[in-house]
Amino acid sequence: MDTSALATSYSAELPAWLRDELADVPEFLETDEDRMALVHRLADRNFREKTGGPFAALVVETETGRIVSAGVNLVLASNLSAAHAEVVALSLAQTRVGTWDLGAEGAPARELVVNWRPCAQCYGATLWSGVKRAVIAGDGPELEELTHFDEGPVRDDWQAQLEQRGLQIELNVLRDEAIEVFRAYGESIATGDSLVYNARGTAENG
Amino acid sequence: MDTSALATSYSAELPAWLRDELADVPEFLETDEDRMALVHRLADRNFREKTGGPFAALVVETETGRIVSAGVNLVLASNLSAAHAEVVALSLAQTRVGTWDLGAEGAPARELVVNWRPCAQCYGATLWSGVKRAVIAGDGPELEELTHFDEGPVRDDWQAQLEQRGLQIELNVLRDEAIEVFRAYGESIATGDSLVYNARGTAENG
Repeated sequence: MDTSALATSYSAELPAWLRDELADVPEFLETDEDRMALVHRLADRNFREKTGGPFAALVVETETGRIVSAGVNLVLASNLSAAHAEVVALSLAQTRVGTWDLGAEGAPARELVVNWRPCAQCYGATLWSGVKRAVIAGDGPELEELTHFDEGPVRDDWQAQLEQRGLQIELNVLRDEAIEVFRAYGESIATGDSLVYNARGTAENG
Repeated sequence: MDTSALATSYSAELPAWLRDELADVPEFLETDEDRMALVHRLADRNFREKTGGPFAALVVETETGRIVSAGVNLVLASNLSAAHAEVVALSLAQTRVGTWDLGAEGAPARELVVNWRPCAQCYGATLWSGVKRAVIAGDGPELEELTHFDEGPVRDDWQAQLEQRGLQIELNVLRDEAIEVFRAYGESIATGDSLVYNARGTAENG
């Protein structure tokens, strides 16, 4: 076959606004609430900037609160359906530290901070990344109801399964504030300002 | 914070050997078996070349058999734990066609061809990609037993869940041949020639 038409690499890049947004943030975020408040701020701005859905995530050093990476959902910006906030944050953290294993021996323990229970894909991605802890704003039907995103088939015992594999789960951190962001996004869909991109029926540009 | 230390993009790139390997392959692969035979060949070569685990995947146009993308597990080569064969093949296909939705209206129906039931991450990634069909060499405990990879917590009704969401699943295509690759990989671990990289305990380089 003629292999010249094949894509041989893929990439995703943070939008410029995110770096600007982080410039004002302290390098260390002490509490779970401090960390989650930043996640909510990024999630809210992400959909308003039209770079993706209302989702954001951080990788943070658990002990010190040092921000290792910040990610937002980049599906629309990157054309990659896998570029959910969790995958973006985990991939950027791995790129920065130079290993696929964020739980590598001798490294500071790291955690994922994210504004809802991971979807059917990011659930596994979190597990394979090596983070030792996940701080999650909430779970339950509100996300799907307010945003119309499908979270996919996740096991009912999702939390126990992660805990059995050594992840500590901190659930319900600034949960109401997460819902506020989803509600604002839902309103922006209703007025036609945002796109729910797991509906199929888009056109291709190439 | 000083944002200059943050990674702002991540990427994965196919190894040079894969492009060479594809040069001899016909542009259209008619049957499921033709497609899977190529997947097995790439999976086998991937671990021998030390670019990743014994896993490969294709995105193919179901009707014509045209190869849209080819991916292999690039966790080791890219330092990204999410760069499993399925995510690589789906991401490369999306990069080539220029949309995150491989099931976009007006586009030819596309399928994922992969050498075992997707893990807890790739299960969701397959669903979000827009492919309409998945051709899977097999499922069951053999993969974990022979390769020592952990496939993670997937729902017991994984197939029905995908079918309910409109994916056609073709299971058990060249299953024995899949197991042969896993067995060869298992032997290369035993002799110290390969690394099972979901064990934690690596060192960081940065």
